[in-house]
Amino acid sequence: MLSGRDELGHRSETVRRANLSAIVRELHESGPMSRSDLVTRTGLTRSAIRGLIGELVAGDLASESPAALDGTPGRPSPVVRPDPNGAIVLAFEIAVDSLAAAAVGLGGRPLEHLRIDLPRGRSSVDDITSALAELAATIRARLPSTATLVGAGTAVVGVIRRRDGMVSMAPNLGWRDEPLGDRLTTALDLPVPIAFANESDLAALAEHRRGAARGIDDVLLVWGSVGVGGGLIVDGAPLTGSAGYSGEVGHIPVNPDGLPCRCGSTGCWETEVGSSALLRRAGRPPEGGHEAVDAVLAAAGAGDPIALAAFAETGRWLGIGLAGAINVLNPDLVLLGGRLAPSYPFVRLTLEAELDRRVLRASRRLVRVVPTSLGEDAPLLGAAELAFEPLLADPAAWLRPRHTLAALASA
Amino acid sequence: MLSGRDELGHRSETVRRANLSAIVRELHESGPMSRSDLVTRTGLTRSAIRGLIGELVAGDLASESPAALDGTPGRPSPVVRPDPNGAIVLAFEIAVDSLAAAAVGLGGRPLEHLRIDLPRGRSSVDDITSALAELAATIRARLPSTATLVGAGTAVVGVIRRRDGMVSMAPNLGWRDEPLGDRLTTALDLPVPIAFANESDLAALAEHRRGAARGIDDVLLVWGSVGVGGGLIVDGAPLTGSAGYSGEVGHIPVNPDGLPCRCGSTGCWETEVGSSALLRRAGRPPEGGHEAVDAVLAAAGAGDPIALAAFAETGRWLGIGLAGAINVLNPDLVLLGGRLAPSYPFVRLTLEAELDRRVLRASRRLVRVVPTSLGEDAPLLGAAELAFEPLLADPAAWLRPRHTLAALASA
Repeated sequence: MLSGRDELGHRSETVRRANLSAIVRELHESGPMSRSDLVTRTGLTRSAIRGLIGELVAGDLASESPAALDGTPGRPSPVVRPDPNGAIVLAFEIAVDSLAAAAVGLGGRPLEHLRIDLPRGRSSVDDITSALAELAATIRARLPSTATLVGAGTAVVGVIRRRDGMVSMAPNLGWRDEPLGDRLTTALDLPVPIAFANESDLAALAEHRRGAARGIDDVLLVWGSVGVGGGLIVDGAPLTGSAGYSGEVGHIPVNPDGLPCRCGSTGCWETEVGSSALLRRAGRPPEGGHEAVDAVLAAAGAGDPIALAAFAETGRWLGIGLAGAINVLNPDLVLLGGRLAPSYPFVRLTLEAELDRRVLRASRRLVRVVPTSLGEDAPLLGAAELAFEPLLADPAAWLRPRHTLAALASA
Repeated sequence: MLSGRDELGHRSETVRRANLSAIVRELHESGPMSRSDLVTRTGLTRSAIRGLIGELVAGDLASESPAALDGTPGRPSPVVRPDPNGAIVLAFEIAVDSLAAAAVGLGGRPLEHLRIDLPRGRSSVDDITSALAELAATIRARLPSTATLVGAGTAVVGVIRRRDGMVSMAPNLGWRDEPLGDRLTTALDLPVPIAFANESDLAALAEHRRGAARGIDDVLLVWGSVGVGGGLIVDGAPLTGSAGYSGEVGHIPVNPDGLPCRCGSTGCWETEVGSSALLRRAGRPPEGGHEAVDAVLAAAGAGDPIALAAFAETGRWLGIGLAGAINVLNPDLVLLGGRLAPSYPFVRLTLEAELDRRVLRASRRLVRVVPTSLGEDAPLLGAAELAFEPLLADPAAWLRPRHTLAALASA
């Protein structure tokens, strides 16, 4: 369709693109649905929907199947499905002690998925980008050659600038001011841009779109690991702040007389609720990492009083820090993710008691605290959602040109 | 225009309303501008703009004056102005020690303005709603009878539910669970709805639209008084949280072994940076309120070492609490308002030193801390902006029916 203007002064091409976006977003986020449902959800006319779906089917972004008879009166409406091979993204995660990669199709289902251990301590950016490039090659080899690549996204355990993937600080990796974005872009050599964000921000995005926060507009996710990160959903959309550095709840000062933090400050929330604090309280070496935390979890599950007391004290500090964040943000839901998800049963009582004491009543009545539902892959799934965003915002731009894997291999 | 649909499936009435909204919002927020500027800013065609402005002029929301010759080639473009009498709102503020009311015209200029002292301590909801009704009557009597009332808004120093103006907590007034919304609606008996929000949230809205935060997308305002409140602008829009209770930065726990807070918790930020803490540090009775704070400000201005040390210690705690909020929100700008605005020169050094120590470098580089620019009326002006919101969102709904003051008086 050429660019014209309707009698109300809008460019019709702009309107068509916005309408395609509304339809593809519905299919991606909510899955297959009837044409009638699309009419209801988008507010477009039946004839407009029919034409736009025709475009999406021709462009391999959707398929239609004959309507099933559902027992209601009237002509049954055909069912429209997102086409996972018509638009796939590659997702990557650089976590504390592992690297992961996945291919995810339109509709949000992972098609392929790999995770490998990362030795703890310092890994160079080149080590990690090389390892991710190998994972990407393995995954791509497993996909059908007709699959069309539309984007890539990367979740990073660190403070990262969204615009270009510059890592300001990643204490788990020993990184400071590392140009991860440039290096990974070169190492992967993909025909699509790579998006970058912090792992907790992306876990929040994934939990909001497909997990425990689905349909909830104001959400704070706290991701516990060696450090503690956070991700925010505000009024249904991710809060990124000015440059993507938001959500660093681990560095809220909660204890003026507290311990030194890896960030250079003292008494940050992370010094009281990160894994080192838990391990210290449980009488174990504080550098033990995830496996040591898992051992304390197992001990608590078996009723060990020292492990239970360590979690109770961690819960108390969890409540103190969360209280401040809840008073500032007035969320409906707080999600505990990472190693905090399995810790939830053991921190719940002391955490809730501090909230009762410290959260203003009005906000306290509205907020629930629960574990995440997507498990350790939430940041990886969030990286996929981030990678889909340009397609969802303007599918028309992706109907041509195509980056099928076959075309890439022959280039 | 009757409701039809264009060939792309959009209701043309919906599009017309959205276009009217875009124009009225531009005029309200940016002031008089040429038709050419409106074409540029809205992306609409010249002929669409002409027709829509015709509707706004007929509805008294705008006026057009002949173009001034500006020395550029081509036919000069007529200048469109918002019509302040065509749409006015009444704004109210319930502050710590004063009540205020104003009439504000489309375009944001206060037409009338009154502020009266409120005795400190407990005032009943009925006392306050009666006083506000008197202020409203005085203001209305001063307005031209052709002025058209389109809304009302109220800023409250307390935790208030936006939906209905239920006050959960207002320690300065001694209120807990008071139905201010119902009472004020009855007392004022206006033909338009009254909107409610917390004073700091509304100060942030006003500073973002017309003050020191204009054009800045991610802003945290801290309003210091007896207590300490906050208001957030995120990605250009106010962050309200689930029910409007967000921004309660005064109740971030910063010192778990600290002093009892009026909210029932201990060691809230407010206990270290509110006026009582300053007065205590300055060796004065902590219940002195604004006048006592002003005396410490004057002493600091005259170089009194005790006053300067009191502000320096307050600045240190301001920095500690702000550091947490900045790490969570990654704002571009922090505004210090209320009694913190004149305190700024005396708290700046210690505040910035704590930020240097406690804010993650990436966020630290981006954030500036400055005083507000609208002074003590910022919450009142924000209440006016809140009251304009329904008109700005859908001016078509306000072109008829009209609530001129003459019509109200004869009703």
